[in-house]
Amino acid sequence: MTDIISSSEIVAQMANGQELSVPIYRITGNGQGPSVYIQANMHGAEVQGNAVIYQLLESLKQLDCYGDITVVPLANPIGCNQKSGEFTLGRFDPITGANWNRGYHFNSDLPNQFAAQYPDLSMPEIVVKFRQCIIKDLEQKQLNSPYGLTTAQHLCATLQRMAFEADIVLDLHTGPISSRHLYCPEYAKESASLFNIEHTLFIPNGFDGALDEAMFCPWWQLQLAYSQQGREIEVAVAAFTLELGSQEWLCLEEAKKDCASILSYFSARGVIAQDLHTPAVMTRYACQLSDYRALYAPQSGMVEYLAPLGQPLDAGQPLVRMLRMDRYGQDDAVNIVPAPERCIPVLHFASASVNHGTELYKVMTNYFTL
Amino acid sequence: MTDIISSSEIVAQMANGQELSVPIYRITGNGQGPSVYIQANMHGAEVQGNAVIYQLLESLKQLDCYGDITVVPLANPIGCNQKSGEFTLGRFDPITGANWNRGYHFNSDLPNQFAAQYPDLSMPEIVVKFRQCIIKDLEQKQLNSPYGLTTAQHLCATLQRMAFEADIVLDLHTGPISSRHLYCPEYAKESASLFNIEHTLFIPNGFDGALDEAMFCPWWQLQLAYSQQGREIEVAVAAFTLELGSQEWLCLEEAKKDCASILSYFSARGVIAQDLHTPAVMTRYACQLSDYRALYAPQSGMVEYLAPLGQPLDAGQPLVRMLRMDRYGQDDAVNIVPAPERCIPVLHFASASVNHGTELYKVMTNYFTL
Amino acid sequence: MTDIISSSEIVAQMANGQELSVPIYRITGNGQGPSVYIQANMHGAEVQGNAVIYQLLESLKQLDCYGDITVVPLANPIGCNQKSGEFTLGRFDPITGANWNRGYHFNSDLPNQFAAQYPDLSMPEIVVKFRQCIIKDLEQKQLNSPYGLTTAQHLCATLQRMAFEADIVLDLHTGPISSRHLYCPEYAKESASLFNIEHTLFIPNGFDGALDEAMFCPWWQLQLAYSQQGREIEVAVAAFTLELGSQEWLCLEEAKKDCASILSYFSARGVIAQDLHTPAVMTRYACQLSDYRALYAPQSGMVEYLAPLGQPLDAGQPLVRMLRMDRYGQDDAVNIVPAPERCIPVLHFASASVNHGTELYKVMTNYFTL
Amino acid sequence: MTDIISSSEIVAQMANGQELSVPIYRITGNGQGPSVYIQANMHGAEVQGNAVIYQLLESLKQLDCYGDITVVPLANPIGCNQKSGEFTLGRFDPITGANWNRGYHFNSDLPNQFAAQYPDLSMPEIVVKFRQCIIKDLEQKQLNSPYGLTTAQHLCATLQRMAFEADIVLDLHTGPISSRHLYCPEYAKESASLFNIEHTLFIPNGFDGALDEAMFCPWWQLQLAYSQQGREIEVAVAAFTLELGSQEWLCLEEAKKDCASILSYFSARGVIAQDLHTPAVMTRYACQLSDYRALYAPQSGMVEYLAPLGQPLDAGQPLVRMLRMDRYGQDDAVNIVPAPERCIPVLHFASASVNHGTELYKVMTNYFTL
Repeated sequence: MTDIISSSEIVAQMANGQELSVPIYRITGNGQGPSVYIQANMHGAEVQGNAVIYQLLESLKQLDCYGDITVVPLANPIGCNQKSGEFTLGRFDPITGANWNRGYHFNSDLPNQFAAQYPDLSMPEIVVKFRQCIIKDLEQKQLNSPYGLTTAQHLCATLQRMAFEADIVLDLHTGPISSRHLYCPEYAKESASLFNIEHTLFIPNGFDGALDEAMFCPWWQLQLAYSQQGREIEVAVAAFTLELGSQEWLCLEEAKKDCASILSYFSARGVIAQDLHTPAVMTRYACQLSDYRALYAPQSGMVEYLAPLGQPLDAGQPLVRMLRMDRYGQDDAVNIVPAPERCIPVLHFASASVNHGTELYKVMTNYFTL
Repeated sequence: MTDIISSSEIVAQMANGQELSVPIYRITGNGQGPSVYIQANMHGAEVQGNAVIYQLLESLKQLDCYGDITVVPLANPIGCNQKSGEFTLGRFDPITGANWNRGYHFNSDLPNQFAAQYPDLSMPEIVVKFRQCIIKDLEQKQLNSPYGLTTAQHLCATLQRMAFEADIVLDLHTGPISSRHLYCPEYAKESASLFNIEHTLFIPNGFDGALDEAMFCPWWQLQLAYSQQGREIEVAVAAFTLELGSQEWLCLEEAKKDCASILSYFSARGVIAQDLHTPAVMTRYACQLSDYRALYAPQSGMVEYLAPLGQPLDAGQPLVRMLRMDRYGQDDAVNIVPAPERCIPVLHFASASVNHGTELYKVMTNYFTL
Repeated sequence: MTDIISSSEIVAQMANGQELSVPIYRITGNGQGPSVYIQANMHGAEVQGNAVIYQLLESLKQLDCYGDITVVPLANPIGCNQKSGEFTLGRFDPITGANWNRGYHFNSDLPNQFAAQYPDLSMPEIVVKFRQCIIKDLEQKQLNSPYGLTTAQHLCATLQRMAFEADIVLDLHTGPISSRHLYCPEYAKESASLFNIEHTLFIPNGFDGALDEAMFCPWWQLQLAYSQQGREIEVAVAAFTLELGSQEWLCLEEAKKDCASILSYFSARGVIAQDLHTPAVMTRYACQLSDYRALYAPQSGMVEYLAPLGQPLDAGQPLVRMLRMDRYGQDDAVNIVPAPERCIPVLHFASASVNHGTELYKVMTNYFTL
Repeated sequence: MTDIISSSEIVAQMANGQELSVPIYRITGNGQGPSVYIQANMHGAEVQGNAVIYQLLESLKQLDCYGDITVVPLANPIGCNQKSGEFTLGRFDPITGANWNRGYHFNSDLPNQFAAQYPDLSMPEIVVKFRQCIIKDLEQKQLNSPYGLTTAQHLCATLQRMAFEADIVLDLHTGPISSRHLYCPEYAKESASLFNIEHTLFIPNGFDGALDEAMFCPWWQLQLAYSQQGREIEVAVAAFTLELGSQEWLCLEEAKKDCASILSYFSARGVIAQDLHTPAVMTRYACQLSDYRALYAPQSGMVEYLAPLGQPLDAGQPLVRMLRMDRYGQDDAVNIVPAPERCIPVLHFASASVNHGTELYKVMTNYFTL
């Protein structure tokens, strides 16, 4: 049995003075395994990660944990509470339009500076010292700016400060209407088969503001910096974004599957005992991020999503049917939008009506099996 | 084979000067049946009515029509196009919060005035003359106000002007996540069994701004006015709101069922040949509007909707499970909200997270079978 | 010197579990004057009332208070924090469109029941007992509903519970772009001259959901109920809505003027010493609420508001100039919308572009001086 | 007298099928001057540019024009019509949060490719041929993408196609609450003194998606590409963003000043006769874009903007006063946020209440006079 310690941390302050906080649950491991940070619900409508965290805590409290584990459900209280009609408008800051998951910090100068300064440190020393280095850099940015931070940067910095302590970082998201999929950095390819997730997108070593990138980019680029000095080291931190299905949907029973998926990864990485959970047998598909394509509506209309999610689709097969009742009686009142090439549809738009140019589907192309 | 004539009418003008219009499709009957007006999509997210109109036109063009039929899909171009995130925020005017389906006009003085002025008209004369009377009243309100109309009033008046010509008015809506249900005025009770809709709400003779009320209230109150003079007349106009399932969802195949449902009512009323379509055999439940209750969230949280829609539920049975991940480890982290009494859940909220006081479910209580 | 005791009360609970509260400041009077309740910022963008409350507390703490005073700034934490772009979208519940200031409770049966039950109570006894009666009715509604309350009803009930204790209730609002004006119940006409507000709207004894109505309707209708029994009593409670200028605007210096205005009313009513503050000398205009007219845009376009606020305007004088750059080169590229009749423009829309049917101005017609 | 030819072009298609278009006004010059493209209102709330275009057309039709002039008011019909409460939410796509002024296209490969392919073309030949090259690249991107374009990309591409024809491009914007300022590419420094705008931001040769950048980056980088080959050419195209004051504000009279400002630049550049308009005498301040700093709210609260716009302010002088009525009676109920360094406040936020991290002011630091 494992104790779970709860606390909370203030991450925002609203116009009326009210402070908003995130709940934090911590498990102290026995020190023999890697440490973990998990958060969920950074986008307000993507709530299923909270259910997965619930099931995960229910499981972990029955187990021996080797590594420290910190989990933060409801990670974005502004996004969670931002309603617009019968929908949670929690994808971007309603004032600025800035995607909440693009406010993390990465100082691309640090890896090279560090490798130059400490060419000969042992790997354990590197991990400790470089972690101190990136945490200090974050704190300076956060605390010492006379011009302050944006609301998103402040929220992200507070979460990132916790995540920086961990060796493994999982950011739990969902798509709009979506099948499960995993964003996995290319250097950690083999990890994709440890989760029970059928679709994986391999992402390169570039920073676009998201949490997973903010976590692995410093360490991946540190590896490259040492490599350029002729020294090969491991990438010490692994970070993944797990897309757990559809937004605006909660199911505690379904969450058990994703809990098992994460425990399988934990077993393999030694966060918990090695033989406890094993990956499910399934065909796992993957593609490069650059082959993960959005299809934008070639015209506006009312939409019927035809292509099932998660299954290969041939070029020319229908993705959506579009109804244009302003055109009834003409040839284009009902139109099919076909798949431009062989692909696996992974997610589609949440609404049944779209403007010209609205993202209809995201599909994996040039995919392969793992 | 029947001709379908298409036209359009301007219903709004946006800030940039752009005029927005609604498409109109008209069938001219042989003059032997009642006339019909059907509109859909007055609330922007409620798109399935457009698909039903599509199937209806496809059917009608194969049939002989006895009455004139006017259909207006995409009836609210402002609402249809009002997006907020991945959702159509088309339930209310984004400027004022006014529900688009509460902008219709009813002058409650007219029925009594008319009955007093024309005590002895024949029923056919009453229909012609009172229709002229309420149309003239609407036009005066619309055209002669030196202070103008609101955006919603202007849109509604333009649609209402067309609807006033008809003997039968159908307003096609959907709920958020919903089973099919029918709003039926009490005087037209027997009509509820002519549609293939399992759940009916009987509404009283009161005007709250909606199209169905705006259509039947003048005629129902005219009946009462004559009745007070000791003369019994029919209510000449029937108007219904059909709730066709869930918003943000389109399915041309499923629309065929609702098309058959409407054709069944048309057959019975003589809009088309009497023997063409008959109502499906099904258990039909009904309750009074005052027994159609909304249950508001007794606390906030992430929500799993447990009660299936459209099926009787005993008091105490679970409606929703609420997850409060800020309370993990305490007794109230997971809570069940039970049905306060025996009821049939008809619809539930569209989002998986709610504030304290958000409408969770609407349920029929004190229901009975037809 | 007077002590100000601060506390707070929870009024809402958001999706993530976070409770939102309102700050409450209380002054205990010496028991010789009427009690007061003041709130501000029920609509999120209407912030100036908070500044007026600030100045009022600064003044009151220097004075002897005869009556108890309770003030609630930031009365609507959901509305205050509801941002949409660079604007506070705090006029209505973003989920339902319900105006936050229409969620108060009034049971119209109580006055007649009470007067029938207690025909002979003394006036002081009436005040105590009827107050208990309406408070108990509110609490039962709030606490005992198995179906719960809406978010707005819950917020309003909590505020109303405090307001019910007071003899004088002031609800501090602002218009969009607005001159100062006062909503005053007709029975309290003479009070309009005690505030330093140039424009007054006299409102009838009808309940439309607002706080001022919810406060005075029970007592006004109680007076009428006794009157129908042949007994004349005072209306024991006075309630006003003060519109303090424009929304999205804060000025602590300007707030001193409204503070003086309220202190002038307090002096006259014996909340503070009688000779401390006297009403400013000014021409005060008033009209009936039914003569307070909204002018809706007769077309869409970009708008230049021409008519100054708060000053009489002749019929035909320009209210707005509308620019239609889609029509440049044609006669209607620039249009003037004139005043339909002699009037005093009181407020205008906040945006420089409007749809057809957007409220452009609100004007007093058939106005008179007090 | 000059003819103004009006036309329009479709730039968007909304969910209900309605196409939205922009008005276009064209003047054909005598061929002796540079060609011009001007647009306004790309952000929906920034309407004053339409008034400036109105005055400009009124002036130009009285003049001889040497260059062709194309103007597009109301350039973003989606943004213009996107209302949220009493405010135009037209800064970003309401579905995605994408800033409308970040959807333009720039292919950074073209300049080097072109310079390598055509090292010896004459300058006039370069202008013609490189223009063809970038137009062809845009059209291919727009037309030939099997996956389509986003709504913003489609709108931007249509506008950009027209702008690419011009030698001078002016994009008319406003700030939220703002003094006039000019975004000017560094290579065109001397042009800053030709406009009657007191504040200029010099922007570097980087592309961030805005129209001005999309216009000058290809030509500036072409200059650099030739320079690396040892050949010095002019930058053939000049592009500026003019910020004309505050959003949600229209004034035809004030627009005459900005019209004069643009005509002054036109005179200097030979679009119209050289001696017609001369720049006003004024102190012009400028700074580098990297010295144009946003100050984010260090706490939340109600805000009184104290620092006047457009005037130098010493370090430590007050920018805003923040009222926190939840803290009345404590030391921090009223707080001053001072200028972190000597600066010129150029614009401030539009709302009187802010979250922690909301942009309060944007200020020029390390500024200098031109």
